[in-house]
Amino acid sequence: MAHAWVLTSRPKAVPVASDFDLVPIPDRPLEDGEIRVRNRWLSVDPYMRARMNAGHGYMPPFILGEPMTGRALGDVVESRHAGFKPGDVVSHMAGWRDEAIVGSSLDPWRIPFSDVPETAWLNGLGAAGLAAWVGLAVIADARAGETLFVSAAAGAVGSVVVQLAKAWGLRVVASAGGPRKAAWALELGADHSIDYKRDPLLETLGAAAPDGIDIYFDNVGGAHLDAALAVSRRGARVAICGMIDSYNGERPLELRHAGRLIAARIRMEGYLVSDHMGARDRFLAEMIPLVRDGRIRNRETVRQGLAAMPEAFLGLFDGMNIGKMLVEIPWRGDGGAKALP
Amino acid sequence: MAHAWVLTSRPKAVPVASDFDLVPIPDRPLEDGEIRVRNRWLSVDPYMRARMNAGHGYMPPFILGEPMTGRALGDVVESRHAGFKPGDVVSHMAGWRDEAIVGSSLDPWRIPFSDVPETAWLNGLGAAGLAAWVGLAVIADARAGETLFVSAAAGAVGSVVVQLAKAWGLRVVASAGGPRKAAWALELGADHSIDYKRDPLLETLGAAAPDGIDIYFDNVGGAHLDAALAVSRRGARVAICGMIDSYNGERPLELRHAGRLIAARIRMEGYLVSDHMGARDRFLAEMIPLVRDGRIRNRETVRQGLAAMPEAFLGLFDGMNIGKMLVEIPWRGDGGAKALP
Repeated sequence: MAHAWVLTSRPKAVPVASDFDLVPIPDRPLEDGEIRVRNRWLSVDPYMRARMNAGHGYMPPFILGEPMTGRALGDVVESRHAGFKPGDVVSHMAGWRDEAIVGSSLDPWRIPFSDVPETAWLNGLGAAGLAAWVGLAVIADARAGETLFVSAAAGAVGSVVVQLAKAWGLRVVASAGGPRKAAWALELGADHSIDYKRDPLLETLGAAAPDGIDIYFDNVGGAHLDAALAVSRRGARVAICGMIDSYNGERPLELRHAGRLIAARIRMEGYLVSDHMGARDRFLAEMIPLVRDGRIRNRETVRQGLAAMPEAFLGLFDGMNIGKMLVEIPWRGDGGAKALP
Repeated sequence: MAHAWVLTSRPKAVPVASDFDLVPIPDRPLEDGEIRVRNRWLSVDPYMRARMNAGHGYMPPFILGEPMTGRALGDVVESRHAGFKPGDVVSHMAGWRDEAIVGSSLDPWRIPFSDVPETAWLNGLGAAGLAAWVGLAVIADARAGETLFVSAAAGAVGSVVVQLAKAWGLRVVASAGGPRKAAWALELGADHSIDYKRDPLLETLGAAAPDGIDIYFDNVGGAHLDAALAVSRRGARVAICGMIDSYNGERPLELRHAGRLIAARIRMEGYLVSDHMGARDRFLAEMIPLVRDGRIRNRETVRQGLAAMPEAFLGLFDGMNIGKMLVEIPWRGDGGAKALP
C-alpha cells in the first residue's frame, strides 16, 4: 500500500507537524498514458510553503486532505505510456509519497544517461540549477567583471549561483548563516563570505564590496534585500528568486533603503523558473559538462524515509540544509515493500 | 541686490523653517559664457528633499550656506553667451533665488516660441511631463488596453500620467488625497479615482481593478506601493518615479505583499528623468500639440514671492498642491527692484 503526505490544515505562520498527515493511497490499475513510479528521492523546497496557503500564489494551493505534490525522482515499475518503460529513471511532480501514479499533468521526464550522480537532477541540473542560471543570465543579465551579492549562498540555488557567477567572471560576495555554510561558500569560489548570523550584514557587505554591487541574487528578502539596496551601484539589478524570510507571513518586508531604488536606478524583478523551461536545453548544454567536471559542485542534506518529509521541510526554515534538501526513500530489494523507519 | 535661499542645517526628518535662510548674493560682472536672468517662476519639487541630506543620493547634496538650486524660468537681462540675448525666456537650474548668474553648468535652455502658457515649461512640458512620459513609455512599456494605477494623481507628474495614459488607451485608476484632488483626477479622465484619505486603499483599489493592474506608476511609495503589489497582475511593471512617503526618512517602507513580486513576476524599476534627456525631442513633439489643444491640462499651485519658497516646499509634504507647485516672483516694471512681500 502506497502512502502520501496530505495537508490537514493551512498553517497561519510557521507550519507545525500537526498540519500534515501520512495516509495510505488506495491502489488502482494504470490508465492509458500513465506510469507507476517508485520514488527514491523527494525534493524539499521552500516554495512549497506558498502552496500551503489558500490562494493568490503562483501555483494552485494544495488541496486539504489530498496528497501534496513536488518534484521527485524514481524508477518506473509499470508503464502504459509509450515513452516510458520499466527501469527508466524519471523526474516528475508526484512527490510527498513513496509510490506514485504519474500522468502527463505531473510532468514526467526521463533522466538522460550521463555520468553525473542522479541526485544532480533534483539539484544543480534540476529546477535549483535552472533557477540560478535564469536569474543570472536572463533576469540579471550578469556580465563578467561585475560584482554580485547572493544570499542563502549555501542553499541549493545559491550554491549554483556562486559557482556559475565565478565561472562567468564575476566577483562574488556570498551570505550564509553559520560558520559551516559561510566556509562552504568560500570553498565554492566566493571572493567574500559573510556569516550573517555573526557579522553585521550591512557593514560587512559594504566592506566586502566597497564600490557597491551590480547584482543582488535574492533568495531570502528581508534584511538581505535591504542591505543590497543600500550598497547598489547605479543600474544594479535585483533578481528575486525567493524570499524565504517572508514565506511564513510573520512580518512585512521592511526596507530602510527603498530610496536607493530611484537614486541608483535599480531594476528589481521577481521570476519563476517554471516560466523558463524553454531555456532548459541551453542550460543543460552548459551545465552538464560543468557538473561532470566538478567545476560546479552539488551538495545535499538528506533525511531518510517518507516519514521524515515534514521535519525536512520545516528544517528549511531553520537553516538545517547545506545544499539541496532531499528525502531518500529506501526500498527493500526489487519489488519489495517500502521500509518505513 | 539679489537674494537666495541657503540651507543652514541638514534636516533630520521633516524640514523646518529654521533649516533655511534668505541671504543677499554679492553682485559681480558676468564672465564669458554667462547670462544674467531675472527669475519669474521657481519650481518647487519633492526631489529637492533628497539633496538636503548629506550624501548618497542621486544628485550632489546642497552645500550648507550656499544658494540652493532647482529649475527656474526667467528673463535674460544681460548676456555674454552667443546663444542668448536680453529678452529671451530661459529655463535653467539656478532656482531658489530671484536674480541668477547662469553658466553652462546650470543648463540654461531657451523656451521655444509657442502658444502655450509659459509655466507649462516648468510643468507638463518640463521635467514633470517628461518624467510621466518616460515612466509610461520607457520604464513601464505601457500599452493600450492595460490597466494603470497611479498615485499622487493630482500632482505635477501624476496628472500628466493620468492624461497621457488615457490618450494612449489605457484604463486608469487614480489615487489622490482629499475630495478636491480626487475629483480633479476624474476631470482629467481617470476611470476611477480613490481619495486615499477617506477610502481604505487596498479594498477600494481591488474593487476599481477587479482583474488586477498591469502598471503601477509610483510617486509616493509606502502603502500605495504595497497595495499595488497586492493587486498586480502577472507581468506587472512598477515605474518608481518618486517616493514622497520616504523622503523625510521617518519610517521604513513596509511591504506586506512583497511575495507578489515573485508570484506575479513583477518588474519594478526606479528611474530619474535626468537620464532620459535624449528623449526630450520625441516627448515634446508629442506633448506640445496635446497641451496646446487642451487634451493635456496643466494646473499650478502658486505662492507669491521669493520669501514663500520654504513654505511652498514644505507644503509638498502636506499635500498643499494641486498640480505643479510654483513660486512666482513679481518684478516692479522693467529693470525695477524685486518686490519682496
